[in-house]
Amino acid sequence: MASTLHVNYDNKPCYDILIENDYERFYSVLKDFNLSERKICIVTDSNVAFKTEELVPNIENLCKEVSVFTFPAGEASKNLDTVYELYDFLIKRNFDRNDLLLALGGGVVGDMTGFTASTYLRGIKFIQMPTSLLSQVDSSIGGKTGVDYKGYKNMVGAFYQPSLVYINLSTLKTLPKREYLSGMGEIIKHGFIKDRAYLDWLNDNMDKIKALDLPTLEYMIKRSCEIKQAVVEYDPKETLGERALLNFGHTLGHAIEKCCNFTNLHGECVSIGCVCALKISYAKGYISKEDMEYGILILKKANLPTDIKGISADSVLNATKHDKKMDSNKIKFIILKSLGDAAIDTEITIDDMNESLEGVLL
Amino acid sequence: MASTLHVNYDNKPCYDILIENDYERFYSVLKDFNLSERKICIVTDSNVAFKTEELVPNIENLCKEVSVFTFPAGEASKNLDTVYELYDFLIKRNFDRNDLLLALGGGVVGDMTGFTASTYLRGIKFIQMPTSLLSQVDSSIGGKTGVDYKGYKNMVGAFYQPSLVYINLSTLKTLPKREYLSGMGEIIKHGFIKDRAYLDWLNDNMDKIKALDLPTLEYMIKRSCEIKQAVVEYDPKETLGERALLNFGHTLGHAIEKCCNFTNLHGECVSIGCVCALKISYAKGYISKEDMEYGILILKKANLPTDIKGISADSVLNATKHDKKMDSNKIKFIILKSLGDAAIDTEITIDDMNESLEGVLL
Repeated sequence: MASTLHVNYDNKPCYDILIENDYERFYSVLKDFNLSERKICIVTDSNVAFKTEELVPNIENLCKEVSVFTFPAGEASKNLDTVYELYDFLIKRNFDRNDLLLALGGGVVGDMTGFTASTYLRGIKFIQMPTSLLSQVDSSIGGKTGVDYKGYKNMVGAFYQPSLVYINLSTLKTLPKREYLSGMGEIIKHGFIKDRAYLDWLNDNMDKIKALDLPTLEYMIKRSCEIKQAVVEYDPKETLGERALLNFGHTLGHAIEKCCNFTNLHGECVSIGCVCALKISYAKGYISKEDMEYGILILKKANLPTDIKGISADSVLNATKHDKKMDSNKIKFIILKSLGDAAIDTEITIDDMNESLEGVLL
Repeated sequence: MASTLHVNYDNKPCYDILIENDYERFYSVLKDFNLSERKICIVTDSNVAFKTEELVPNIENLCKEVSVFTFPAGEASKNLDTVYELYDFLIKRNFDRNDLLLALGGGVVGDMTGFTASTYLRGIKFIQMPTSLLSQVDSSIGGKTGVDYKGYKNMVGAFYQPSLVYINLSTLKTLPKREYLSGMGEIIKHGFIKDRAYLDWLNDNMDKIKALDLPTLEYMIKRSCEIKQAVVEYDPKETLGERALLNFGHTLGHAIEKCCNFTNLHGECVSIGCVCALKISYAKGYISKEDMEYGILILKKANLPTDIKGISADSVLNATKHDKKMDSNKIKFIILKSLGDAAIDTEITIDDMNESLEGVLL
């Protein structure tokens, strides 16, 4: 059981996404990297570090030297201090332009490692080995790397493509249930913005998905990777509008994430943001009430939150203004023209958003 | 009087190099950037800041807002602290993905500004406006950006292309004479590695060059830019060996620069490094004694140093070992097969280098 997707960049083959259930094909693909004279540094966090026990001996057989850099898990580590510690670690071990990094972990590990890889000696190769559902279907694909800076999320970063994205489904079995389900936020979003049939499939298969049924997982992750792949291939640097569609549910989702001080998971906040975006899409006459309710139902089926207590509409709307400033004073709000078809709407006002929060902020 | 070179990246048009003697064409080219809704931050250092007095009012007419970020001149500023100050400056002024930076100054300004541009919000546009001879013919072209890190030169950086390289020859008139002449180190190197006829032209026109004769300068800078352009177009990320040829004179030049604690200018140290590389090329039987002596003569004609007092061969050879470690333990020494034709030689030993330093280190 294994799937491979070939991702292009600028219409040329760039890297593969390899999905399997054990490490068998991974080691054979690693051989193609001609590692015998190269060093690998596995970058991971304190939650995922235990997985290096299995990986290190196997990778050691293929390359010159393996080292492991572990940092404390969590968004609080996604900053330039951690990048510096990694620079120092690499310098100490004489890492040169031919050596490579392997990001083993969730989105924080991938973003931070990718950014370090993009800037160490003007760029060395790196492999994404995402271990959370969220990073497998979202952050590991498309070359967005970066770290937070003085409270600004992803303020410092680079577009820098990995040399391989390797997804091992078995890592999902050790993922905390809540974190696993939060990944469903982005997956259902993929259905919302691009594929009505996939949305129906998710609705029909939610029990198997929640039970981590392997063939179901493989299909789901592959389909979500394909959707993300198609978007980033068309608009790799978010200049054409297409990549912005991935932000469906994120304008208010990000704001809610910030207002609850990151006590809720990203996918959970995106789920709530999707509810608001569905409501706005209905209010603006794009989608029917039934479609809106069907969308919300699927989120609920995945045990994702569709409302939240303890934060005010004012604080949420205020937090969206930061996003706004970052693109010529216009809010590029993503709405659905129909289920499976998203578009940018620059006419959505603060009042529209405020209305959508009614019944969502408890 | 104006010349334009069109630089490709990945076989596609990427940016222009515009060479002129006043700012006339610059302002008309800026109009093509559709600046009316965009902000520009001019990044400059304490030596060059006075030039903003002329620039700011003219650029103000073309864009939404102009600001000036000035930092203390010198290599000591080329670090991540300065990058942070610039991030903070941009965040405070709400710079978004559509705004741009203009690097007004020498190599330090260009490298630091380019790196900031490459990482702020995952990359914003920047214009190189090199004001030193060295940066006009070398560092502003080819997309190498970066800063020093804990004493390691250019350890942190990115390949990131500018949107325009604008060279105003009049800036050379205010450049200190010694700094101007040090730029000749890289220019003569261009002749050494790629163009024997250009080398002869430099030899024949050295008096006019030293007198800053404008038509002579224009031809020289254009020809050097063309040589640099051809190399970086063929090998943009220094992976094919071609771009390594630009390092002629740099293995020992860099080491000497380090050993004299950067009290000599980069171009001056490159000149001394070129002498050693010419001597090694002769000792290895690649070039004749006459060619070696002719090469050294041209460096001398440009008032460039061909020897240096007060540093030991041991310290120089030791300093080259750092470079070495950065590329799989092999020294990629650049030799000349003939004047105008450089090549990589991986068989040059520490002993060979030691011999070449005899008579050079006084």
